[in-house]
Amino acid sequence: MTIRKSTLSSQDITSLNQYWSLANYLSVGQIYLLDNPLLKQPLTRQDVKPRLLGHWGTTPGLNLIYAHLNRLIARHQLNMIYVTGPGHGGPALVANTYIEGSYSHYYPAIQQNESGLKRLFKQFSFPGGVPSHVAPEIPGSINEGGELGYALSHAFGAVFDNPDLIATCVIGDGEAETGPLAAAWHSNKFLNPASDGAVLPILHLNGYKIANPTIFARIPKKELNQLLKGYGYQPIWVESSDVNAVHQLMSDALIQAVNRIQKIQVEARTQGITQRPIWPMIVMKTPKGWTGPKSFENLPVEDSWRSHQVPFKELRQFPERIELLEAWLRSYNPEQLFDSTGRIIADINDLIPEDSLQMGRNPHANGGVLMQALKIPGVGDFAVDLKSRGSQKISATRVMGTYLAEVMRLNESNFRVFGPDETASNRLDDLYQVTAKTWVAEQLDSDEDLAMDGRVMEILSEHTCQGWLEGYLLSGRHGLFSCYEAFINIVSSMATQHAKWLQVASQKVNWRQPIPSLNYLLTSHVWRQDHNGFSHQDPGFINHLSNKEPNVVRLYFPPDTNCLLAVTQKILQTTDKINVVVAGKQLQPQWLAIDEAQKHCDQGLGIWHWASNTDSAKPDLIIACAGDVPTIEALAATKILNQRLPDLSIRFVNVVDIMTLAMDTTHPHGISDDQFRQIFSSDAPVILAFHGYPSMIHRLIYNRPGHENFHIHGFNEEGTTTTPFDMLVLNQLDRYHLVKNAVNRLQDMTDSGAILDDMDFKLAQHHKHILQAGDDLPDEIFN
Amino acid sequence: MTIRKSTLSSQDITSLNQYWSLANYLSVGQIYLLDNPLLKQPLTRQDVKPRLLGHWGTTPGLNLIYAHLNRLIARHQLNMIYVTGPGHGGPALVANTYIEGSYSHYYPAIQQNESGLKRLFKQFSFPGGVPSHVAPEIPGSINEGGELGYALSHAFGAVFDNPDLIATCVIGDGEAETGPLAAAWHSNKFLNPASDGAVLPILHLNGYKIANPTIFARIPKKELNQLLKGYGYQPIWVESSDVNAVHQLMSDALIQAVNRIQKIQVEARTQGITQRPIWPMIVMKTPKGWTGPKSFENLPVEDSWRSHQVPFKELRQFPERIELLEAWLRSYNPEQLFDSTGRIIADINDLIPEDSLQMGRNPHANGGVLMQALKIPGVGDFAVDLKSRGSQKISATRVMGTYLAEVMRLNESNFRVFGPDETASNRLDDLYQVTAKTWVAEQLDSDEDLAMDGRVMEILSEHTCQGWLEGYLLSGRHGLFSCYEAFINIVSSMATQHAKWLQVASQKVNWRQPIPSLNYLLTSHVWRQDHNGFSHQDPGFINHLSNKEPNVVRLYFPPDTNCLLAVTQKILQTTDKINVVVAGKQLQPQWLAIDEAQKHCDQGLGIWHWASNTDSAKPDLIIACAGDVPTIEALAATKILNQRLPDLSIRFVNVVDIMTLAMDTTHPHGISDDQFRQIFSSDAPVILAFHGYPSMIHRLIYNRPGHENFHIHGFNEEGTTTTPFDMLVLNQLDRYHLVKNAVNRLQDMTDSGAILDDMDFKLAQHHKHILQAGDDLPDEIFN
Repeated sequence: MTIRKSTLSSQDITSLNQYWSLANYLSVGQIYLLDNPLLKQPLTRQDVKPRLLGHWGTTPGLNLIYAHLNRLIARHQLNMIYVTGPGHGGPALVANTYIEGSYSHYYPAIQQNESGLKRLFKQFSFPGGVPSHVAPEIPGSINEGGELGYALSHAFGAVFDNPDLIATCVIGDGEAETGPLAAAWHSNKFLNPASDGAVLPILHLNGYKIANPTIFARIPKKELNQLLKGYGYQPIWVESSDVNAVHQLMSDALIQAVNRIQKIQVEARTQGITQRPIWPMIVMKTPKGWTGPKSFENLPVEDSWRSHQVPFKELRQFPERIELLEAWLRSYNPEQLFDSTGRIIADINDLIPEDSLQMGRNPHANGGVLMQALKIPGVGDFAVDLKSRGSQKISATRVMGTYLAEVMRLNESNFRVFGPDETASNRLDDLYQVTAKTWVAEQLDSDEDLAMDGRVMEILSEHTCQGWLEGYLLSGRHGLFSCYEAFINIVSSMATQHAKWLQVASQKVNWRQPIPSLNYLLTSHVWRQDHNGFSHQDPGFINHLSNKEPNVVRLYFPPDTNCLLAVTQKILQTTDKINVVVAGKQLQPQWLAIDEAQKHCDQGLGIWHWASNTDSAKPDLIIACAGDVPTIEALAATKILNQRLPDLSIRFVNVVDIMTLAMDTTHPHGISDDQFRQIFSSDAPVILAFHGYPSMIHRLIYNRPGHENFHIHGFNEEGTTTTPFDMLVLNQLDRYHLVKNAVNRLQDMTDSGAILDDMDFKLAQHHKHILQAGDDLPDEIFN
Repeated sequence: MTIRKSTLSSQDITSLNQYWSLANYLSVGQIYLLDNPLLKQPLTRQDVKPRLLGHWGTTPGLNLIYAHLNRLIARHQLNMIYVTGPGHGGPALVANTYIEGSYSHYYPAIQQNESGLKRLFKQFSFPGGVPSHVAPEIPGSINEGGELGYALSHAFGAVFDNPDLIATCVIGDGEAETGPLAAAWHSNKFLNPASDGAVLPILHLNGYKIANPTIFARIPKKELNQLLKGYGYQPIWVESSDVNAVHQLMSDALIQAVNRIQKIQVEARTQGITQRPIWPMIVMKTPKGWTGPKSFENLPVEDSWRSHQVPFKELRQFPERIELLEAWLRSYNPEQLFDSTGRIIADINDLIPEDSLQMGRNPHANGGVLMQALKIPGVGDFAVDLKSRGSQKISATRVMGTYLAEVMRLNESNFRVFGPDETASNRLDDLYQVTAKTWVAEQLDSDEDLAMDGRVMEILSEHTCQGWLEGYLLSGRHGLFSCYEAFINIVSSMATQHAKWLQVASQKVNWRQPIPSLNYLLTSHVWRQDHNGFSHQDPGFINHLSNKEPNVVRLYFPPDTNCLLAVTQKILQTTDKINVVVAGKQLQPQWLAIDEAQKHCDQGLGIWHWASNTDSAKPDLIIACAGDVPTIEALAATKILNQRLPDLSIRFVNVVDIMTLAMDTTHPHGISDDQFRQIFSSDAPVILAFHGYPSMIHRLIYNRPGHENFHIHGFNEEGTTTTPFDMLVLNQLDRYHLVKNAVNRLQDMTDSGAILDDMDFKLAQHHKHILQAGDDLPDEIFN
């Protein structure tokens, strides 16, 4: 099994150098050339793109690594993907997948001939062409690398439950400075060598960022080694500016790393796991922009930050630079790389893996191909048996936890739950009946629910949780992220980037198959963080996502346990979506039987006739709500109004799927204006109690008929450590403020003064006896 | 200067133990007690709070550290602040500031007597009282610690340019798992031992989070040491579960650390800096929840995650637990700590620093006290001398850079600029004429603009930039963060937390003085990231912030260079705000002379009469815009309309300060409905071209008169690698789509078909010759 290290033959070296020249030539060609891809004629102004875009600096390093990985894959039939941390090095990944043939496989218009080359070059960073980054369009990619920091967590996510997969993860020394990357190194404490695959990090120490040296390159080698060992890795160095020396070092390093990986895995799989393994990694220290221009206008370019993007620009204005470019391109000896038809003749056969093993074609990087639908249990066995509306106090997320436990049981190796040390706090701990929390580090006898093969993944890094889950989904498996609502904002930019990925992959890249949706349970939400205070009170994430691509984003506010079950069952069956479910974990009243809940959640919103006192098409007032706590308050307000104004006809509306409020022209879940009018009328005042910021509703219903009749109560940025009910009062989302607003909106009221006084009295009583409410909301709804 | 280590006398030990008992007693009292603070009577049900909230686990460790720091401060007159990473350990910081007297100084109603004690206990985590976290209400705090990860970057931010200050930063081993914290360790490569103070990190290895062990506690000690040394620190271990042993170890460790800090500083200040110093840090490994209940219901509590919050609850329901609590409280021997009046009699005099040195009273933690207003240069010398409107192409941020350079020159030690490796890319590099980039690591001859005493701070971690700047501001100095617009989303949750801090500090904590505002320049914005593609195109941050407290948030969209100067000058003089300025870095046309710009920016929005063709109070059409690129398109659209429909009266409106659109009842910058009507009329169609998502405008003008006449163009989540103009076309924010929309809104148009056809032809031409636009927008405005 062990691969023996060997001295590379001169043929090996030649072959590697030819491959590298080819990949570098193809990369420079993409950045610069519009035409004349084989340099059959001297380069002219017209051959060069008018706008020069792209990132050269990282590219030769990415190419060199790809060449060596290919050699290893071809020789040893490894199952490997390439995660490109320096994702702006898009030219490299396009070049390598073109060389291996996977690019032409996915893009048949671009073949390995002169016209294919011309297209390949022209399309790069060109209107209507391909992005300059390792975007969804690029075969083999699961990491965009525009927003840096997520390569390593993506790589780990991809290998969980993929025991035969190696994710080689190139980490730029710029990206290594980011927080998310710095945290993700610790993922090795969550990797099971028996049932997971392996990640091989390659830290590419090329020394410079856009305009600065990197920290990692300017600390002593000893210190960097300590850091990487401290993270739990065994670093293997590949360090030289002599390319042939680098080839030998890299070949040895990769063999050493793969042997070490296989030894760890074989031991774990045959003898069991006794302790956390020390996984190998590689540090590759080579010059930035290697083989590019040494200098330009007397300033160093190679091995400097000046090679980061396009080493020299404005070629159309400065024709002498065209000669520089031509010399650079010819330094790769294109005549030895291609024949006159553009066919590749470089002697690189040993470096091209068979089709199915090519990294550009690895199905793990197009996870939808491998996706197996979740086995979805029915919700009936888990549902609350509704005795009478409002009489049972149940923790919705606890019941959801029992359901998720069954999903976990039915879907071994295909489903994981992620969270930042909050799964139990979020009441999902019934999961531990079926599986444990992953923990591949020291365990003590006193520990509970920790195991090397656990499938609930907890690390106190929202970034790492999100990155793991994204990697897991992108490689075709299913999962759910549970988080305190306030702190999911920590990953709002990651969610944005994932939404962009889904949008492009599903709409613009026909060979990418749908992948499982990214599912969030946001709990311990703004209305039940009274004890932790203002820092824990923020419903901004839903606003943030509500602006993203309508075909991607879904936002659910189940009002009770059965609705939460119905929504959970629904979202777990979707693909290519970001589903956000907001639901509290506290004991709260129940409103709908499970069949009602399923119907209601399928519709997304609807009239609750049992809570209305009229079936009239023209009610005097509409009380509406979205969110579990707002539903309680809206029902309580309705009850007060019924008692005080028995002749007032009130319609009660609940919204589960908030995007139903959007115009049907702007969101696929949006209802028509006719439906909107049927539910909200177009003349009665609508008092709407909403979980989040009122502004989110305002902008959704901006053009709706009768929108000027809506009066929205929600979070108004008032928070502190107090009682749950006081949180509502502070933000005027409580029943008394709802009643006051309703009364103020009704015309010709005789009793209004008395009711308003009474509500003010209730509020005064609340302030006086604030603690009487205790942990709970006032209990005056259905008793 | 060197402090000698010494064996603690038995008196020292007694004193430290009494202090610790006192702090622990006060902490437990806050969590549990409503009354009977001195335990004069046996505890009863009524003495215990009905809701038990708070975090015990981290508290004894925080108390122990505080005691030892106090001893050191009292003996050696150190200037020190205490940054509490485990900020949920609020009881500890309240207890210690109460003991030293700073709490009573700020809150005179809470004195060191029985009634003061009773108030102190009752108010904690109590409605109308103080939050459970180290919030702005707590003296000495500059870090909330609800959202974990920012303690270390805050600590570094506080000591930049504060050469005599030591920020001791307690880092929980939970927080240590987060990305932002993991990145912030590298701040030591940016700390100048001559002109900055020192940070003393104390990693509190108490082993557990809410429900899990911590990674740092479950890797071998050798590995953890490697990690910390790899981060560039010299760890000193304090490790024991025998408290007297811990006292000696901690005393020695602190002396060693402070000696090392002073040695580094003295050498740097007398002999100059030759290399990056290796700063000391402390690892304190003690049991979580130390001195609390050993176990509860046969499960371990001390030294377990079960001590994280309130070790046992529901005392009112289970009276036998009241006895457990009483025994716990009495274990601290309160009768030795207080006399019968509640005066502290514990023998802790040696552990209380003189008033001005108390950490609760250190002015650096109430930075407004020390704040010196920036010296603000006039903008006249930097302004664009407007030749004719639209004829000069200038990079607005480049000119801003010249202005900032002058601000930097005038305000040595009081102003810094922060950015993630983008300062030059953002065209602010004229700053380097005045100062360099901070770099306290290896330098090479080929480096440019790096210096140990540089004042532009670049690290490829938005989190660290933001954390440094927040620490710098909270300690009373000024700064600006420049960032690509898309990637500022990475710190949107940090900005939220800072907004919360400012809101509470400015509105609810009367002793906190105003601090300098947090200023963002967002550039390389969504409309000029055509080259980097979709991952770099996101205007979501402004939406995110627009929901936050209106008294805190300000959003500016200067349309040209002079407006950017005017806005910059304005925001640098503000306090307690988050100012966001969005402005492009590319060459763009100029519209206003500097005096016009200043007036326009002071008003926040206004009619541009020179761009309108009518002064009528009833124009046929209003073209409005916010943002530099939208302004270009709106002007171009206006020109086309003028040419095609010379009889059409058009009013042109530009909005700089977007919050002027908000109701004056909801935002202090909001204009009245009358003013709104005067500017936007209430019947003419308004075509508004906006920099960000249209939804943001929709929700701002939701209730405005005539809002149904607004038609808003903005970012619609369409992006890719293309030309700048194509980005506009993709999102229908270009001049041709604006014209089309305007024409469609006008009644009784005879020519409309021809104009629409012509616009479609222009768009078709664009698609055909997409590259002819090159790097720039079509040049057809004022030529």
